[in-house]
Amino acid sequence: MTLSPEHQAEIDASRAATRTTLRPVAEGLEQRLYEALPALDHGFVRVVDYMGDDAAIVQAARVSYGAGTRKARDDRGLIRYLMRHWHSTPFEMCEIKLHVKLPIFVARQWIRHRTANVNEYSARYSILDREFYIPAPEHLAAQASNNRQGRGDVLEGAEAEAVLRMLREDSARCYDHYAGMLNETADGSPADPDKAGLARELARMNLTANVYTQWYWKIDLHNLFHFLRLRADPHAQYEIRVYADIMCELARAWVPAAYEAFEEYRLGSVQFSASAMGCLKRMLAGESVTQESSGMSPGEWREFQAALAD
Amino acid sequence: MTLSPEHQAEIDASRAATRTTLRPVAEGLEQRLYEALPALDHGFVRVVDYMGDDAAIVQAARVSYGAGTRKARDDRGLIRYLMRHWHSTPFEMCEIKLHVKLPIFVARQWIRHRTANVNEYSARYSILDREFYIPAPEHLAAQASNNRQGRGDVLEGAEAEAVLRMLREDSARCYDHYAGMLNETADGSPADPDKAGLARELARMNLTANVYTQWYWKIDLHNLFHFLRLRADPHAQYEIRVYADIMCELARAWVPAAYEAFEEYRLGSVQFSASAMGCLKRMLAGESVTQESSGMSPGEWREFQAALAD
Amino acid sequence: MTLSPEHQAEIDASRAATRTTLRPVAEGLEQRLYEALPALDHGFVRVVDYMGDDAAIVQAARVSYGAGTRKARDDRGLIRYLMRHWHSTPFEMCEIKLHVKLPIFVARQWIRHRTANVNEYSARYSILDREFYIPAPEHLAAQASNNRQGRGDVLEGAEAEAVLRMLREDSARCYDHYAGMLNETADGSPADPDKAGLARELARMNLTANVYTQWYWKIDLHNLFHFLRLRADPHAQYEIRVYADIMCELARAWVPAAYEAFEEYRLGSVQFSASAMGCLKRMLAGESVTQESSGMSPGEWREFQAALAD
Amino acid sequence: MTLSPEHQAEIDASRAATRTTLRPVAEGLEQRLYEALPALDHGFVRVVDYMGDDAAIVQAARVSYGAGTRKARDDRGLIRYLMRHWHSTPFEMCEIKLHVKLPIFVARQWIRHRTANVNEYSARYSILDREFYIPAPEHLAAQASNNRQGRGDVLEGAEAEAVLRMLREDSARCYDHYAGMLNETADGSPADPDKAGLARELARMNLTANVYTQWYWKIDLHNLFHFLRLRADPHAQYEIRVYADIMCELARAWVPAAYEAFEEYRLGSVQFSASAMGCLKRMLAGESVTQESSGMSPGEWREFQAALAD
Repeated sequence: MTLSPEHQAEIDASRAATRTTLRPVAEGLEQRLYEALPALDHGFVRVVDYMGDDAAIVQAARVSYGAGTRKARDDRGLIRYLMRHWHSTPFEMCEIKLHVKLPIFVARQWIRHRTANVNEYSARYSILDREFYIPAPEHLAAQASNNRQGRGDVLEGAEAEAVLRMLREDSARCYDHYAGMLNETADGSPADPDKAGLARELARMNLTANVYTQWYWKIDLHNLFHFLRLRADPHAQYEIRVYADIMCELARAWVPAAYEAFEEYRLGSVQFSASAMGCLKRMLAGESVTQESSGMSPGEWREFQAALAD
Repeated sequence: MTLSPEHQAEIDASRAATRTTLRPVAEGLEQRLYEALPALDHGFVRVVDYMGDDAAIVQAARVSYGAGTRKARDDRGLIRYLMRHWHSTPFEMCEIKLHVKLPIFVARQWIRHRTANVNEYSARYSILDREFYIPAPEHLAAQASNNRQGRGDVLEGAEAEAVLRMLREDSARCYDHYAGMLNETADGSPADPDKAGLARELARMNLTANVYTQWYWKIDLHNLFHFLRLRADPHAQYEIRVYADIMCELARAWVPAAYEAFEEYRLGSVQFSASAMGCLKRMLAGESVTQESSGMSPGEWREFQAALAD
Repeated sequence: MTLSPEHQAEIDASRAATRTTLRPVAEGLEQRLYEALPALDHGFVRVVDYMGDDAAIVQAARVSYGAGTRKARDDRGLIRYLMRHWHSTPFEMCEIKLHVKLPIFVARQWIRHRTANVNEYSARYSILDREFYIPAPEHLAAQASNNRQGRGDVLEGAEAEAVLRMLREDSARCYDHYAGMLNETADGSPADPDKAGLARELARMNLTANVYTQWYWKIDLHNLFHFLRLRADPHAQYEIRVYADIMCELARAWVPAAYEAFEEYRLGSVQFSASAMGCLKRMLAGESVTQESSGMSPGEWREFQAALAD
Repeated sequence: MTLSPEHQAEIDASRAATRTTLRPVAEGLEQRLYEALPALDHGFVRVVDYMGDDAAIVQAARVSYGAGTRKARDDRGLIRYLMRHWHSTPFEMCEIKLHVKLPIFVARQWIRHRTANVNEYSARYSILDREFYIPAPEHLAAQASNNRQGRGDVLEGAEAEAVLRMLREDSARCYDHYAGMLNETADGSPADPDKAGLARELARMNLTANVYTQWYWKIDLHNLFHFLRLRADPHAQYEIRVYADIMCELARAWVPAAYEAFEEYRLGSVQFSASAMGCLKRMLAGESVTQESSGMSPGEWREFQAALAD
């Protein structure tokens, strides 16, 4: 990731401007505020604002006036109870706003999560930067042979080289043609005075899906956890998981008790079907259960075995 | 509204605890933070947290790194442009969290706005306070004769007295029976040791719809404005409008430029139908248009005339 | 439940009017269409429309043109796979519309599920019927002593009688005063010509929370399953569970393969936390694990034991 | 648009399979069901299912049992009233499901409307077809000089030719490299047995934004109208407006009374700000108002003049 000196200066200025507030403050997140955390080759995640902290979850759950005094259960215990029993609304009381730079094909997956607010950089209105995602060689994976959605081994040798060359050259050529069709110089005047320049809203169609876009993305903690459960998962595509992993660290810094509960009851949890529960009870009673006697399909049985072996 | 001394002390403590933050701060709203603004006879609205300010709207619209430098248009002008052209997403970048105490029949209207986060005081789990909304005599309106949803003149004399007596007595009796069925003392022990006490989740069904409940309610600015457009409207029921009016003042303190645009392009705006536009053009051309020649129904014509006469 | 002869006649007429369509038809649900299925003492659930069937889920998952031909996996298997792996969007492609009559305190729980469309009978505009929910004696439960949200034993003898009498008398008195304050006869003329009649939007505040309301409620299958998972659960309040149980039967008639998967992977499933998984593996390896050595709180340990004992 | 013979046969089969139902049927839409209506050069819109009709809107508004008998106002009048007064929930009671084929850059605009259900063809799992959007010469517009979001004159001569050639060649080359990197033949076997083939989820990043994707998209009528108000507008990008225009015709066939009201109170309506209303009243009183005396900015004044001149 390369930030321009101007951008870095703006971030530094934002980090230098301390203000006073009566609102709750999450110290752990204040330390990361505005900072651009690198993701992939040109992307980043930056926290630009947040609302609430662990105590805000507790406060909403108690619907009390202030910090809450009747603590039959301590705050951490209550947060764990809420997470365990699928109480979603107290977690909705915290909100985070991120500035994210990401390739378009990642943005297309990401936007499927509808319960968030988004302002994306508009290629109808503005001109995108000349930056494309090119996978690092160790992430240039082959198609998995046993799973239509997955990745297999890493490509090597001539094939890897050819793939990288195509990705690089096609992105660059498409971008350069995009710029050429626009026919604009940096100050907005025509590059070639004899050309009209294609409308931006049309020219953008020539860009490849690895071009970087950026957006402001705002989401509440409940929906963020839902996003992270799906996208920080080993089955998620590597390129979105990189972003999810960064956001996991940010969530941990922001709401440590809630994040710990999220790890315990979501990320690290396993859901067993009715049939799996039946098998489990038989196994705990000493019976030896096989796929054939399990009532599960081969695929389910594999997943069941994997969950117990992890 | 009567706050208990404990609650007032908590609010005072919250208002005394100044913290430092790197986040944007809305000075106007900091001054009202935590304060309980009275609504109806026992209700209130309190801001318990917020995210963003006018500049955050602009920043999201520009999707720039920091405070935004290329100001072809100044911030106020951009906010007005966004509001005028129905750009909703930049306004979604601000968020506010309120603590509201309100009668159940108002809460039932309010909750119809689905794009918000809510944590309501649970009468399944806790015991409601003995507080009911009783309209002030000047708000004891008769049914409008010409409009099935509206209010007419204020009730007077014996009828008014009888109505108020019924409201008061029925609320009180129902509440006292509720408390009696629960059979609990303040410390949770049975009031009458020979009774089991009805489950809270059942006893609550004996309460009348003017009993006060309370909730934490969190919403983004775009959806808050949508709520206020409907509920701060003269056609809204008086009892919810009281809350909406308070929230209008809070919005004005929080995001003055956005609120000004909201007044200009929403609250004070008028929408004319295709037919109304046709009439308007004929009228501006000097023609005298009547309901008969307008193509509008009598009801629409009345609304059209009212809009031009306001 | 008592339907008026007029209502029953309308339902019979709707059930008699067969039409032709090119759309998918769910035979199992056609048989229950429009029928009022009784719930509690005066409530009901009626299917008034639906869109899609099991095949529509499969079709969306395949995004193919028609019925889908490349069936590497059969439809039932694909539906089970989608449910098991939390693919929610194909289930969103089916939609159901219900007409429900229910007590207000149940409606208040129900409406917390925001991802649905609702048209409720308006007490601002119309007059509610004189019908209240009074629990059957076997559902008149005491407060659970060990759980603030639960029910304990059934009330008996004099206490039960007193509770039922209060519920009946308070509902009736409040309703009669409501009607009296309205001062309207069936044809809308004043009952007492010397009275103005209180506005409906105000009079309704005198009604108790066990009065019946009704609404049209429309929801997609994914969100219906989410609702049913929470509300058909043994921990849900009995009065809403009655409705959820009816809807489970309707879902089974509508989308039998999806419902079967829902039972297998949601209703009958168990989620184990990271700690619980650790214990499970130790137990399967022959170790004897106690609460003390489990790393779980006493409450979690109880829940874990219950899940394995069911 | 070219449908393969197999797809056309499937559509024909769907259109031939008449079934009986007790549900409401919208005759106008039954006639268009399943048919692929062409959009742009390779896209289409197909209705694959729907729920409800004009009567369903009325029925929900009346929350009555059946067809609704107390018709103080006729159905068309009630629908117009509901639309005029922003009653959104009755319109949410109708639902439509479309199968749409569209270029990715159009899909990216479209998906910003969050209140809909989507199943998109997955390029992680499947291989996209070799089809790209290339604008017809009469739609190859230059960037507007006075408006950063708009289109100006049509490109001509050598510039137009060069642009079209770049769009065609870049799309084709990128697609062919995509196919080459995948290294798959139609039956899934490797094209070159010495290559592993890049994972589909990675290869797709080489595709340009004018490649066609497809999805199932399901939305309720209220939100469809909201979409159409924004996207059938002359300011919307031409390429999405083509789809919106087709959907307008489908909505007209489906719910003629609601669509008529939508044209009257939304598409053909004009919203005047508080300042514009002030000017209007002065103008109707015979005063001559100029931009200087209007209190409006030059941009607003232009919009105001345009609204009165249309």
